[in-house]
Amino acid sequence: MFRKRHDKRYIFEKLEAFHQMDMTYDSGRILSSMCTKPDDIALEAFRMFIETNLGDGGLFKGTSMMEEEVIASLAKLLHSDDACGHIVTGGTEANIMAMTVAKYLFQEDNDNTPELILPRTAHFSFKKACSMLSLNTVEVPLNDKHKIDIERLEDCITDNTMAIVAIAGSTEFGLVDDIGEISKIAKSNDVYLHVDAALGGFIIPFLNYRNNTQLNFDFKCKGVSSITLDPHKMGLAPVPAGGILFRHKKYLDKLAIDAPYLTKNVQTTIVGTRTGATTAAAWALINYYGMDGYADIVEESINLTRYTYNRLSQMNHVQVIVKPELNVIAFNVSDMKVNELKEKLFKKGWRVSNTVNPYAVRLVLMPHVKKQHIDRFLVDLEEIIREYYS
Amino acid sequence: MFRKRHDKRYIFEKLEAFHQMDMTYDSGRILSSMCTKPDDIALEAFRMFIETNLGDGGLFKGTSMMEEEVIASLAKLLHSDDACGHIVTGGTEANIMAMTVAKYLFQEDNDNTPELILPRTAHFSFKKACSMLSLNTVEVPLNDKHKIDIERLEDCITDNTMAIVAIAGSTEFGLVDDIGEISKIAKSNDVYLHVDAALGGFIIPFLNYRNNTQLNFDFKCKGVSSITLDPHKMGLAPVPAGGILFRHKKYLDKLAIDAPYLTKNVQTTIVGTRTGATTAAAWALINYYGMDGYADIVEESINLTRYTYNRLSQMNHVQVIVKPELNVIAFNVSDMKVNELKEKLFKKGWRVSNTVNPYAVRLVLMPHVKKQHIDRFLVDLEEIIREYYS
Repeated sequence: MFRKRHDKRYIFEKLEAFHQMDMTYDSGRILSSMCTKPDDIALEAFRMFIETNLGDGGLFKGTSMMEEEVIASLAKLLHSDDACGHIVTGGTEANIMAMTVAKYLFQEDNDNTPELILPRTAHFSFKKACSMLSLNTVEVPLNDKHKIDIERLEDCITDNTMAIVAIAGSTEFGLVDDIGEISKIAKSNDVYLHVDAALGGFIIPFLNYRNNTQLNFDFKCKGVSSITLDPHKMGLAPVPAGGILFRHKKYLDKLAIDAPYLTKNVQTTIVGTRTGATTAAAWALINYYGMDGYADIVEESINLTRYTYNRLSQMNHVQVIVKPELNVIAFNVSDMKVNELKEKLFKKGWRVSNTVNPYAVRLVLMPHVKKQHIDRFLVDLEEIIREYYS
Repeated sequence: MFRKRHDKRYIFEKLEAFHQMDMTYDSGRILSSMCTKPDDIALEAFRMFIETNLGDGGLFKGTSMMEEEVIASLAKLLHSDDACGHIVTGGTEANIMAMTVAKYLFQEDNDNTPELILPRTAHFSFKKACSMLSLNTVEVPLNDKHKIDIERLEDCITDNTMAIVAIAGSTEFGLVDDIGEISKIAKSNDVYLHVDAALGGFIIPFLNYRNNTQLNFDFKCKGVSSITLDPHKMGLAPVPAGGILFRHKKYLDKLAIDAPYLTKNVQTTIVGTRTGATTAAAWALINYYGMDGYADIVEESINLTRYTYNRLSQMNHVQVIVKPELNVIAFNVSDMKVNELKEKLFKKGWRVSNTVNPYAVRLVLMPHVKKQHIDRFLVDLEEIIREYYS
């Protein structure tokens, strides 16, 4: 492609053709993703700051100030006055940053291979972290509610335990571990506790705010050392906007690497060059929507999830795996193989994913999914079931 | 900030105020960055694909095809027919991916701590990689030209050598190691060789194309296993657009992690959710500019660098550290401390950075820097020197 130059008309015709092959969130057909259509105000802010680089923050002092304000806001949202962190590329970088900090803390007085206590429900980014960072995984068993079994957690802790990971909004079912209890165990055993709230971090605080739920998952739990929460999921920011917060600045400082050629002399992210545009987007969103605006957005998705859950629960041959706590539903159609069902839904234009433990079809109801989409989906699902059993 | 909602007018007034505090590339005052103002056609393509996520490529088939085409183009640019890789967040992720692959290959038949042979000139992302991945660093000495000392490289290789890193466009001086010779040593010793061409990868091929230089650094050198090259540096793409290419697919496959919830079932990047917008930007740029367009852009910066070098070389009290090979110049003013000179230039509105080995003021001449900016800079520099010696 380097060999031949093309004019703008050719370029944009081709781009349009590629674009036509992509799914869009607006279609309401993407029921498999934790990402969603970025909000208009976010995109407007994004465009203003497109050339900024927070990896070289001294050049972009305004954008750096916005990052500080966004992090301070997220800290407050998570009940901390002084947690610190960064807007990073996403939940994976955030989780790997937390694991890296925990590893460095562990290595201060232990030369053995660090052990990470991890439930099976943890996102696959922790697999990346474990193999990259050479950590041994200790799998903490789940209880019958698909959550970390509190009774058996303490047995997993050894002299070589580096950290515990708990989940606030599991990838498979959107479930929230009992982080209040896990936090107590972590604290009494002096173990680093990381909470992966990539999904739940922008949902639970707003449900709690409206007294819709009362789920503990954040720095109010004294044993929680760090939290991942992604503005580019329910926060409506464009990608890449992940968030990582550490309870203490000394944790974040463990990541500090000298960056002599840059305007700030240390860097505490994994990624180096780092767009400030998504931080500007997050800043605009937080100030525009505030608690009430986000609570409205979140409640709409949660209410739609409950509606979908109720409808699915009433359908013949359908078994919902577990009652949703957030905006994820997994279900099966008796006898029918998951892949067969996925395939049939795919042919009708729906993009659904699947869980593995147990195998089931999985729906994520992000803000781009509206009631009319779900109603249409349920009609198609009923038709598939009817045909299958006819 | 979550507590109070604000209207759009307030939001954009505040954003504008933050924006005013940022430096801009257009001002020509940023002489310290390897990033630059993204090209207009890149931004137009970017906007079209803002909601895409290559971390879940099955949803975005058009964008995924663009990534394949971009990678195939970059492979060809680097003289390979079948290198494969990804558009990632930047040079740091690219370098860490390469180090991770090298570590996994090493671990297939060696349980010892892997050793990474690294010149002092390597970017600080390798420090991140070494501490995260628990690698031991073996520093290969430099020759008097600030490049890897070929004579002493082989002595660094042991049974525990995991990889050698060579640089095509060093961060400090923009110098290119003798990768032809290093490649031979790597190949004859069967050692993984990674080339960090984050800067040089979008410069050297176009200089070679115009017979402006003939520098070997890419897959033409048979011992090169992987190459980092960043579209978001001289490639004029917006951040985040780094590039990583592996000579063999089996190398990239080492990174494969099961991603059961996604539309593609494996992921071979570090970052998970990954915007496709910068890939679209890179696609548009490559097709629009081609070899000749990029060669024009690159030559303009290289010619301006030579002009600046000549002017600096003729100035009293100025010592240029080394003749530039690419678009980076480091210099000192005799007697004057580097920080003092940086500070005085800062007060006149210039953002320059510094090298460490040896200490010197450092300029990077990216496409946003034009001759009128350099002329103005040199006037200010002369004035500073005159005042200092008066």
